[in-house]
Parts: sequence; C-alpha cells; structure tokens
Amino acid sequence: MADPLVIFTPSGKRGRFAVGTPVLTAAQQLGVDLDSVCGGRGICSKCQITPSYGEFSKHGVSVQENALSEWNSVEQRYDDKRGLQKGRRLGCQATIQDDVVIDVPESSQVHRQVVRKRAEARDITMAPAIKLFYVEVEQPDMHDPSGDLERLIKSLRADWQLPHLTADFSILRGLQPTLRKGGWKITCAVHLEENRIIHLWPGFYEGSIYGLAIDLGSTTIAAHLCDLQTGEITASAGIMNPQIRFGEDLMSRVSYSMMNPGGDLEMTKTVRDGINTLISDIAGEGQIDPAYIMDVVLVCNPVMHHLLLGIDPFELGQAPFALATSDALNLRATDLSLKLNPASRVYILPCIAGHVGADAAAVALSEAPDKSDDLVLVVDVGTNAEILLGNREKVLACSSPTGPAFEGAQISSGQRAAPGAIERVEIDPTTKEPRFKVIGSDLWSDQAGFDDVVETTGITGICGSGIIEMVAEMRLAGLLDGPGLIGSPEQTGTARCFQDGRTYSYLVWEDEARKITVTNRDIREIQMAKAALYSGARLLMDKFGVDKVDRVVLAGAFGAHISPKHAMVLGMIPDAPLDKVTSAGNAAGTGARIALLNTKARRDIEATVQSIHKIETAIEPRFQEHFVNASNIPNAVEPFPILNSIVTLPDVNFNTGGGETPNRRRRRRTS
Amino acid sequence: MADPLVIFTPSGKRGRFAVGTPVLTAAQQLGVDLDSVCGGRGICSKCQITPSYGEFSKHGVSVQENALSEWNSVEQRYDDKRGLQKGRRLGCQATIQDDVVIDVPESSQVHRQVVRKRAEARDITMAPAIKLFYVEVEQPDMHDPSGDLERLIKSLRADWQLPHLTADFSILRGLQPTLRKGGWKITCAVHLEENRIIHLWPGFYEGSIYGLAIDLGSTTIAAHLCDLQTGEITASAGIMNPQIRFGEDLMSRVSYSMMNPGGDLEMTKTVRDGINTLISDIAGEGQIDPAYIMDVVLVCNPVMHHLLLGIDPFELGQAPFALATSDALNLRATDLSLKLNPASRVYILPCIAGHVGADAAAVALSEAPDKSDDLVLVVDVGTNAEILLGNREKVLACSSPTGPAFEGAQISSGQRAAPGAIERVEIDPTTKEPRFKVIGSDLWSDQAGFDDVVETTGITGICGSGIIEMVAEMRLAGLLDGPGLIGSPEQTGTARCFQDGRTYSYLVWEDEARKITVTNRDIREIQMAKAALYSGARLLMDKFGVDKVDRVVLAGAFGAHISPKHAMVLGMIPDAPLDKVTSAGNAAGTGARIALLNTKARRDIEATVQSIHKIETAIEPRFQEHFVNASNIPNAVEPFPILNSIVTLPDVNFNTGGGETPNRRRRRRTS
Repeated sequence: MADPLVIFTPSGKRGRFAVGTPVLTAAQQLGVDLDSVCGGRGICSKCQITPSYGEFSKHGVSVQENALSEWNSVEQRYDDKRGLQKGRRLGCQATIQDDVVIDVPESSQVHRQVVRKRAEARDITMAPAIKLFYVEVEQPDMHDPSGDLERLIKSLRADWQLPHLTADFSILRGLQPTLRKGGWKITCAVHLEENRIIHLWPGFYEGSIYGLAIDLGSTTIAAHLCDLQTGEITASAGIMNPQIRFGEDLMSRVSYSMMNPGGDLEMTKTVRDGINTLISDIAGEGQIDPAYIMDVVLVCNPVMHHLLLGIDPFELGQAPFALATSDALNLRATDLSLKLNPASRVYILPCIAGHVGADAAAVALSEAPDKSDDLVLVVDVGTNAEILLGNREKVLACSSPTGPAFEGAQISSGQRAAPGAIERVEIDPTTKEPRFKVIGSDLWSDQAGFDDVVETTGITGICGSGIIEMVAEMRLAGLLDGPGLIGSPEQTGTARCFQDGRTYSYLVWEDEARKITVTNRDIREIQMAKAALYSGARLLMDKFGVDKVDRVVLAGAFGAHISPKHAMVLGMIPDAPLDKVTSAGNAAGTGARIALLNTKARRDIEATVQSIHKIETAIEPRFQEHFVNASNIPNAVEPFPILNSIVTLPDVNFNTGGGETPNRRRRRRTS
Repeated sequence: MADPLVIFTPSGKRGRFAVGTPVLTAAQQLGVDLDSVCGGRGICSKCQITPSYGEFSKHGVSVQENALSEWNSVEQRYDDKRGLQKGRRLGCQATIQDDVVIDVPESSQVHRQVVRKRAEARDITMAPAIKLFYVEVEQPDMHDPSGDLERLIKSLRADWQLPHLTADFSILRGLQPTLRKGGWKITCAVHLEENRIIHLWPGFYEGSIYGLAIDLGSTTIAAHLCDLQTGEITASAGIMNPQIRFGEDLMSRVSYSMMNPGGDLEMTKTVRDGINTLISDIAGEGQIDPAYIMDVVLVCNPVMHHLLLGIDPFELGQAPFALATSDALNLRATDLSLKLNPASRVYILPCIAGHVGADAAAVALSEAPDKSDDLVLVVDVGTNAEILLGNREKVLACSSPTGPAFEGAQISSGQRAAPGAIERVEIDPTTKEPRFKVIGSDLWSDQAGFDDVVETTGITGICGSGIIEMVAEMRLAGLLDGPGLIGSPEQTGTARCFQDGRTYSYLVWEDEARKITVTNRDIREIQMAKAALYSGARLLMDKFGVDKVDRVVLAGAFGAHISPKHAMVLGMIPDAPLDKVTSAGNAAGTGARIALLNTKARRDIEATVQSIHKIETAIEPRFQEHFVNASNIPNAVEPFPILNSIVTLPDVNFNTGGGETPNRRRRRRTS
C-alpha cells in the first residue's frame, strides 16, 4: 500500500510520507513555508497547522478523522498553558497516519504577508534579516575538546541547515554562562545575511525581537518599532529633529558647517542624540528592552545622510553636488553611536543622487513606480521635494528646493500640523468670508459649538495643508490675482483685505490673543514653493516625453493631508483626474519598513536605484523656464480642468510684482 | 616577423609581445610576480627589473642591447631623486623592442621570500592581508551623479582587477577631502580578505604600512613590528604582562577571577592596557604612527586568550576545561580597545584545546611538525608547557602544567633572565666546587677578571636555564640523589651542603650583600616541573606508539637558552641524540609573524589545528603514572645515553622523600 498522501494548502505542495512522519518534517521536506523556532521540540508553537477533515476535500482526497495522530500531551500542555485555536494542531507533534489535506494558516508561515492598509499598495512579505533559532548543544568532552561556540555552530548547522556561522564579538563573553544557565539549550538570533550569531538567550526564548524603521527628516524624525517575527508595528513615535537649531532648512545646515569649524560634527552628534532619544521613547512606548531592537533601517535626504554618518555635507552645498557615497550601507549601530544591542545592525537605503536621497529611494520602494503599468508621478513634499516619474519602462527622479513653506514654516501665521492649526479652508466667492476647520475638531468655524473648539485648542495658526487651501481659495474667491498679489479692500470689496506695509494682507481670524492673517509675503513663499515643485515635475515629464501623467501620488506626512483640488488650483502638480490623485502617507517611512521586514526588498531597491535616471534640476535650463512660468497662479486665460470639467478662475489683476528665479532663490538659501 | 619573445626569470614564464609593450604589462599578462603600487604610472618604482644582455643568454636567446626601449625621462627622474641600482629599469617605462630575458629581482616580487635565520626553518612567502593600491578617480559629473566612493571603487576594480570592494566605516569621513587634496589621485590600503578599503592617502603614498605580531604570554608580552610591504622587522619590543599582579601563573589568575566578582574584566582591561603600552613603545621605536599599524596577529594560551577577549576564564579552571571558542578569530582592533587605526584588524590563531592555546598553534605553524618527514617532538617550555609530537602522518598535542619554576619563579634564588643572573654552571665532581657564568659576561667565575663582572652586574640570582644546569650538575657531582634529596656535608664531603631547616641546601656563591643557594625545596620545584614536562612528552609518545623520537625542538625564550645535555640529565625531555636537539627560539612569536605576513598560512594552520589529535593529560591515567616515575632524577640503575654514549650517574641515596602527584599539584595551583 502506498504511503499516505499529504497536501498542503495554500501552497498546493504535495507528497507521500511514511506513517508516523511529523507534519513539520513533511512540510520541511516539501519546502512548505511552515515556521518553527524550536526545531520541532514542541516548545515554540510556531508550526500550528489545521487539518481539513471531511469525506472528500476540495482536493479530491478523502480525509478521515484519524488521518493525523491523536492529540498528544505536548499539545495538551500547550493548550492548557496558552490556548490553541480550535482545530489547530502542532505540526511537530501531529504525525501523518493517512491521506490528509493540511492548511498552513498565515500566522504559521515564515514568509507571511503583512497587509498594507492602502488598496493600491502591495503587501509586505516577511523575510527579515534576523531570525531566532533554538538548539540543543552538545556538552564539552575532554576526549574531543572543542569550543562551546564551535559546538553551538555545529548544532545550528545540523538542526537548521544554516551555513557556517560566525559569532558577533559581543556574544563571546556571555556564551558560556548562557549555555550553562539554559542547560545546553539556547535560543540564538542569527543575522541571515551576515551568517552571524548576534544574540543569545538561555533555553527557549519566548519573546520577540524588534526592528526600527526610521525616517530621518530635516524637521522630524519618525520611527516605527516592528516585531521582526510578525511584522506588526509594536509602537510608533516621532520627535523634532534637534538639528533644527542649526537651521530650519538643509542649506542653512550646510552653511552652518561651512561657517563653523567642527560644525558638522556638532550636528552629527545632535542628530545621533536625537535618534537615541527616539529609541528610548519608542522602546518605552512598546515596553521592550532597547537591546532587543536588533535591526534598523534608516532613510533620509543626502544632507541628513552625510551628517548622520559623520561626513561634512560641504560638497552637497555646491555643484556638482557630489555625494561621498551613494550606495546602500550596512553598518553597525555602534558606528552611529546608537544605544542598542552592541550587535545591532543598521541598513541605510541607497541615495539616488546629490539631491535625491535614501528617503526618495524608500518612496520608490514603497510606491514602486518601476512596477507601475500606468505612468505615475510620485511627489514627496517636504522641505525638499523628491519627484519620481515613471512606469515599467523607465523611472526618472529629481529633487526640487521647495523650501519649508509647505510645512508651515516661513509663513507669518504658519505652524506645524498640531491641534489648533487651521487645516481646511473655504472662502465664499461672494462675501469673501472664510470658514475653516482646525486640527482636533470636525466642526467648521461657522457651525454651532465651534466656540468650544476655540476654548479647548485655540486657533493657533495655519498648517501646511491649510495654507495651500487658503491660497487656492483666495484665488478662487478673486482675492488674489494670477501673478499673486492680494487685492486692496476696494479691489476685493472686503475689509478683510487690509493695507499691511506696501502690500495687502487677508485677515482670517482674530480674537484678543491672536490675529491670523495671510500676507502677500506668505503668498510669495507659497508661489516659490509650488513653482519649484511643479517645475520639477514638468521637467521630468519633458524628459520622459509626455505632457500628462496617468496618476499622481502625494507622499510625505504633508502629502497625506493635502487637498488634490486645491493643489491643482494652485498649480502645484500637473493636471490629472482628481480620482487619480492619491495620498501614500509617509511613503518614505513605509519604504523603510519594507526594507526592514524583507531583505530581498533591499536588493530590489539597490538595483532599482541603479537604473533610475537622475535629473539634476540645477543644470537644466528647462527647469528655470518652467519655474518662471509656474510662479503665477493659473488664471482665467488658462482654463483649468478639475474632475474633467473646466474651472475658470477670476480674471483679476491687482498689480505686477517682480518674480524671483530659482537661482536667486538657491543663492538666498545658501547665503 | 614574429613578435619579440620575452622570458622572465626566475619564474621561466615566457610569451611573445608586440613591440612597445611595457615590461610590466607583459609580466601582468603572463602572471609573473612583479610588484606595482601605482599601476604603471612611473611613481612607485616597485616594478624594477633587470634585463640580461649578452649575445646568448642561458635561455638560448640572443639579447641585443636595444632589446628594451631607451632609458626614459621618468626613469632618469627617479634615478636622480632616489637612485636606481645599476642595470635596473622601471618595468612600467621600459618597453619591449626585441627578444629579451628579464630578471625580476626578489625585491620586486609581491610574493617575495622573507628569509628565516634558522637553517631548518622554511622561508616566509609574502602574502599579507593588506596591500596598497594607487588609482586615479573620475571626477563627479552632475549629468551622471554617483558617489565619490562608488567612483573610487570602480577605478580600483578597473585598474587592479579587484572584486567589488566596500569601505570601512572609518574612511567615509575623510574620503571627500582626501580625494580633492590629492587631485583625484589616491592611495588605498585594501584588506584583500575582506575586500574592504581600510585607509586612504591623498595622491601617491610613498611610505609603508605595518603589522604587529604579538606573543601574549602569561609573564611577558613580546611583539615584532613588521613592514607589510617588505616583510622586514622594523622594531621589536617586549614588556612584562601587567596581569602578573593578579597571579604569577595562569591558575592563580583564574582563581582571582573566581574570588573577585568582575575580576576577569579587571584583568581584561589590564592586559589590553599592557598591549597598548607595547604598541606605543614599538611604534616609538620604529618611529612610525601607530595608525599605520593596520593588521595584528596575536597568539597566546587559552587563559590569556579568554581574558584578552573579555571572557571569564572560569571554565578553563575546571574539567572539562571548555573553551568558549577555539576557532581562529577575525576581529577589529576596536573590539579589543587597541589604540590603532580604527580600521585595523586583529587575527587570533585558533586554540588547539582547553590547555593548548593559540600559542601552541603558532608553534605548530612555525615548526610545522605536520610537514616533517622524521618524528619531531616540539616542546614550548613556559609556565605551561605545550607539547607537539608528530610527522606528516599525524600530530598529537597536549599541555602540561610545569609551573613557573623553569622561568626562575618559585626558586629561592631564582630570577628572570637578566644581567647578573647565573645561566651556566659546572660543579667539579671531586671538589664539589661550582663555577658559573652570569648573563652579561663571557667569563667563568673562576677566570681572571671575573671580579669586574661582580662589580658591574653583581651576582643577582639564578635564571631558568641556570637552575636546570645547576640541578643536573648537582646530580652529576653526587650532591643530589635520584629521588631528589641534597646530601648532608658528611654524605657529600663538602661544607657547601649545609643544614637548612629539615633538609640541606647547597651554597653556590655569597658576598656581603647576597647568598645564592639551592634549597631542597628548589629541587622539588624543578622535579615537579620536569616531571610534568617529561610525562606529557611520554604520554604523546605512548599515544603515537613510539618509544623514541627522531629529534627534539625546544621552543620558547627559555628553550633558546637551555642546555640539551643538562635537560636530558635532568630527565626533562626524552632521550635523543644531542645534535638532534635544537632550539627554535620564540617559535610562537615566529608563528604569529608568519600568519601576519601570509594569509594562506592562516588557512593552513586553521586546517592543521583541526587535524591535530588533542590529548588531555588530566584524564589520562598514563600521564599520572609517567609523572610519578618521572619525578626522580635518573640514577645509575637506569643508564642514560648522551651523545650516544652512556653516562652513569652517581649511585647515591640520601633518604626517601614523599612524592607529590600531579593531581595534588593541580589542586595546590587552583586553590
């Protein structure tokens, strides 16, 4: 009689195995993705499976109730202690008795999927750099002397088919006591790319190990603490980048380094200290020991990249904007003075070019324009905007110096996105009266109960997405002309426009404590920023040889809150159907998380970055041209398609203002 | 007409090359071992060659005077500046014009031989881990942005056919200024095993790079500073191991660690500090920057090994004497807090067993018993004796706890080998009067002028080799019986033997300041030590199945000064023809130097150590038996062959003393 047939789902892998073969063994022999940390010793419970019973399964196999061995004492003990979901068995305990169909639930797969929230995003397949392995080690024998480490490595090779491992220097001291404390049973964290043992626990370690995905921005540092076994986000935290005291934007920091000998090292220490604060915060929030954070993936722009690494960013402040190094980096946490496990590793994504950093590479990893069938424009809006345009055929990248206006900085009433900040605005085209919403409340300012909002959070300023809506609404209401001048009370017919030095400002709101206005200087800042962004996108479109894109993805924390309609009114982004403009949230952070959870993704993005066509806006005459043309806010002479209908903007012209060129702008920023 | 024929000597490699081909190019294409650092740019002068002119060379080729191109301006400039040996040409400048025979002098070969002083020792072939490469790097281009590092790596790959390199983290900060300072010309130190750039110099670096071979003993730390380009020893230095304050012998240090929490870390810090002192001393002596010491090879016994690594040696103090790790280690100097270049590497040879360390492996590398046609016994005499016995067929190893007596410690008048120490002794068998020599003088004590010696250095004590001669001479003169008792004045007929507590002592010398005697307790210490040594050797002979060896090699600083005749009278080593007993000097240090200069030797010794049969003396009943039998000093009943003649020792028996067993001895040492 033939051996029983075993079919695994969802893989469909099948084979015949002798009666009495443990399910885990069968799975391993067939290469079925079934997890195990303890190697089949009934300790870890990672190998849970669900047999399908029933006369005929969908695979046409008759499965008897007794197709697997009886529930045994190990399973009973585990069930008593921790509870085993109904119908589940431990794959290392249940043995094959007859033909059977066995389902491997998602949670028992090593390479399980971590589901991303956005519909259009691909799931993440778990394949982290570090995995836990439990082994039992031979005791030392005077007749055949060998090192404890060498016997440990031998067990790991024999039980887990791992290649020859080496030990991180940091584990040597604890090795002997740990082996003896665990009675020659030990759990090892192994870095699978370096083939290196990086941490040890006596006996079977029931806890998890963690990784940190860090998005190191010029203004904020944000991180996700991820469980490297499940892929789940254990905690998230963010802090202000403490480097801000050396300059709000990157060029100010480059200047600081140029003007102050040793200034770069001062900034290096500051940002590393900042990351250490964040590590401490997030470990506290996740209630874990920071020593169990064993892998870190870091993304950042080139200036932050160099400052973090201890490289003077001097060369990035001047043509030809040469990076010291652009490839991905595999470092030790100690290289960066990070207070983690001494064996913790840091992976930094590759930079694309002197102005297009590892953060842009992370956006490319998350949004994968290189795998898109339609032509996608990905814009990561920050102090510097990184822009990607491409499809399966090719991908182009550039960066554009938008400045911090989109983040609420250098705007008279601007502020960071926080409770009390105006984030949504509408201006009545007839009365010119504004209504708005602030962060922390769902009420519009003209709705009942808004006074309570004022009481609670106050109206503290306008955040980045609010200022975009504000300017676009002012244009739509005829308070602003195409070149960007605010009209006088006479020209606009509202007292909210008032003389403010040589130009006019618009009063949004005031009480005893505070007066929130939009000045003409604010308008100029937004015009410069949006022109830079638009020109970058247009330049890439020129290079690609297209004059429209199929879809637009807005990335960045700011991108998540932006109103596509207002962005298009403002002329920030090229025209596209409104339903094809989506937000990817913090795509750089997501890219970092993907690289943290899947080492193959690291190899992918390294290859992708090599093939991306880098465009340096600073040397492209077309960029200057686009910039000059884009500083105006589109007016009635240029009909503007929104939702495939034409919106005609008021044909007003309050005066003629002098423009600023991108080069003048660059000079101003670096001086 | 055929292209000119080029024959290289000494390799004999030959080929035809187009007229105008540089000699260096021809050599590289034929795989001739011709050095170059600058890659044929006429800067480094490493590729010097000597053309053989003459109508017919010994290769039967007619060589014309104009077989090579004319002496050119680059050669002239080099000759003017530094002088080129007569007849030499620069291989990168001289081009082939006609048939020619070209000699590559030893100094122009990458894999040149470093000649070892001893006749029976093999030369060392240069193949260090780190080599210098000079390249010219493409400048950054905004139209095709890439990192400076990536362009440097590309140049190294293109010019030197190196595999894809990575950069040590420590070079990142200096990379951009160094490239610009050198005008995009740069010299790189590349670690060829790690494929990693570890140091940079702007332009062409004319200096050398260095390695350190360290023999870390329980009592002394000795090092050779070696030029990694020539293999020459630039400086040598030694210091006392500052760990001595925690105990003279290893077991005392293990005990210190057991009795004092944190004591092992205290000892770790102490020994690392000691090595740093030595580094500073030796760099000063060699007049080099310690940052240019880029590779270190370290050998030591297992206890020092663990203490250096920061591992508590607790397990080495008790059966089963388990090493934390036995394999060779590739570390960073920073792991051991060594004050070198941050990118410097440390290689530690493998340990053979719990009592047979990396120092024994280094002795095996230097003396190569595994490559010996005859059966060789290699004894490294120190506080612990490591013993190797073998030939091409197999090699056995063990260690034996001789204690520090052979180094002059625990001997009443004992002292370290230093000026004033008695090192040679003869005792007249009739008068029982001694004559001796002290270190620092060639005069015997009964020769004219010896009073001056006494004036200059004093007679300060007896060193290790002196005490061996002393005891053997006492036995030969009938002052000592077989079991090891010193006779009374009546029994020996000399007043130099005098009552000293319950036993007798022998007066060697006295003046107003000092009295040098040999007590019966000194005799016991030497008996224990020599019995341990002899028993270890005998045990290996039993295991090998032989009762004699073809030759004996005495290694260790002490081994270099020992008198083979007296060692055999004493019964320290098994019988062998006297001319087959040689000294290898500090073979462990030499082994470290070999591993420093040749990475293939590292792989060799790693494999050899795997194949060595380890014998643990502590669990071998035969070792105890041999020990009991060996504590006597051979007497007349057992005729003793020296120089193939029989020497009969005086048949005296002064009393019957109680013996000490090795186990009792071990207990005493660890308590």
